Amino acid sequence: MDLQSAPLRVTIVGSGNVAWGLAPALTATPSIHIVRVISRDPAHASALAAAIGPGVEATTDLSEAAHDADIVILAVSDKAIAPIAASAPPSSTAALWIHTSGSVDAGVLSGASPRYGVLYPMQTFTRGVAVDLSDAPIFIEASDGSTLAIIRHLAESISSNVREADSDGRRRLHCAAVFACNFTNHMWDIADSIARGAGASVADYMPLIQETLRKAATIGPHDGQTGPARRGDKGVMEAHQALLPPLQREIYRLLSTSITSQYEQD
Amino acid sequence: MDLQSAPLRVTIVGSGNVAWGLAPALTATPSIHIVRVISRDPAHASALAAAIGPGVEATTDLSEAAHDADIVILAVSDKAIAPIAASAPPSSTAALWIHTSGSVDAGVLSGASPRYGVLYPMQTFTRGVAVDLSDAPIFIEASDGSTLAIIRHLAESISSNVREADSDGRRRLHCAAVFACNFTNHMWDIADSIARGAGASVADYMPLIQETLRKAATIGPHDGQTGPARRGDKGVMEAHQALLPPLQREIYRLLSTSITSQYEQD
Repeated sequence: MDLQSAPLRVTIVGSGNVAWGLAPALTATPSIHIVRVISRDPAHASALAAAIGPGVEATTDLSEAAHDADIVILAVSDKAIAPIAASAPPSSTAALWIHTSGSVDAGVLSGASPRYGVLYPMQTFTRGVAVDLSDAPIFIEASDGSTLAIIRHLAESISSNVREADSDGRRRLHCAAVFACNFTNHMWDIADSIARGAGASVADYMPLIQETLRKAATIGPHDGQTGPARRGDKGVMEAHQALLPPLQREIYRLLSTSITSQYEQD
Repeated sequence: MDLQSAPLRVTIVGSGNVAWGLAPALTATPSIHIVRVISRDPAHASALAAAIGPGVEATTDLSEAAHDADIVILAVSDKAIAPIAASAPPSSTAALWIHTSGSVDAGVLSGASPRYGVLYPMQTFTRGVAVDLSDAPIFIEASDGSTLAIIRHLAESISSNVREADSDGRRRLHCAAVFACNFTNHMWDIADSIARGAGASVADYMPLIQETLRKAATIGPHDGQTGPARRGDKGVMEAHQALLPPLQREIYRLLSTSITSQYEQD
């Protein structure tokens, strides 16, 4: 496998959101050829293979993963990574194996090949939606230096923001993403349910949310914090909690405590 | 006071973020003249008056609020509204008094004038930053129909999305804003602190956050929810909690419980 010679031949295992998100970016690079899509569901494998382009093989046969391929990318659920790697036939070891998870140690791939690594894109994917990955950070890790160079080449074909992170660092980065993305989205979901009790919905909050995000991106979320907890306005906080069902009240109380404690330390 | 005749003469009490946010939008409307800014701090009053335009009076004297004015807008902290209204001289009662708070009952202004109401903009303001209010919802309430018509005129000069909400509804809308904006921002602040432990920062999460927001705005936050709690991935959730200091661990646990409970109900 040489970055200077023929295109890298890639198998993608998986046909979910991450596979659909990464494939278009990889396909756009002349030095990378996706040759095969493997999925448990033949229709899903065929759909993604067809979307990537003509001549891409679609199969359900995992033993084909490394056949005539330089790289196997496991874009599958966290739980599926280790079993798939463990079931790789000995002939697979010529290929470089990669997974895309924020939470799984790189080493679980060592059974499939002595050359393995991680390409973790810090982005959320939706099947059927073309997500711009050009400035999304991609965190990479590899078993050795020459493998790292190849994974870096893959990652840089997708994004201009490629960084190294070991498995511990990647777990922290993923945990931060849960706060930045999953928990934030849940806040909007709760806001929606409360607003509907007053004839509005989260759609009415989009200008406010956009401005909050603009402020956080400009001056940082710590300096951008506003609201009753930031001001220590106990009367408003109590009035709000009185409106809420128990679980939302507990969330309001805990997050207000957390905000207050942040600024007491200032 | 007649919407068809001379411009409405407005006093703004306050020189904080809300006053700075509303003044430019009001000033842009020919039928509205801001004649006076009142602030405890004479320099702050002068700065805002000068920013609004030539001939705007700046004073610290609250007894001047309704002098030669049709409307007094209290753009002050929640706690200051009732004391200011209570101290209004009897001559003030010819003017229409308005506050801009999400949390304070309209009725606290009844001591200042029989004609009063609320103009609550659903937006966050930063001094010195021109915020586009044209599509931010403004929730209004008034003591009577003719007062409501005038407050609606003021609000529609600022935004195309003007709605009525009584004091209870406005409190709910404000509580939802705490989730949509204040708590969301705090999630980004926590994400920043965690990411810094792995050599990144919240700035690296902006593409992810933007995409999360795009998805929430498109399909709604309930359907857009992703992450370990949505998937019920206990192994990842436990690994993340093990990385966190106690208060953040408790937040992670509680929000994951809340997400899980949302989707059990589906």
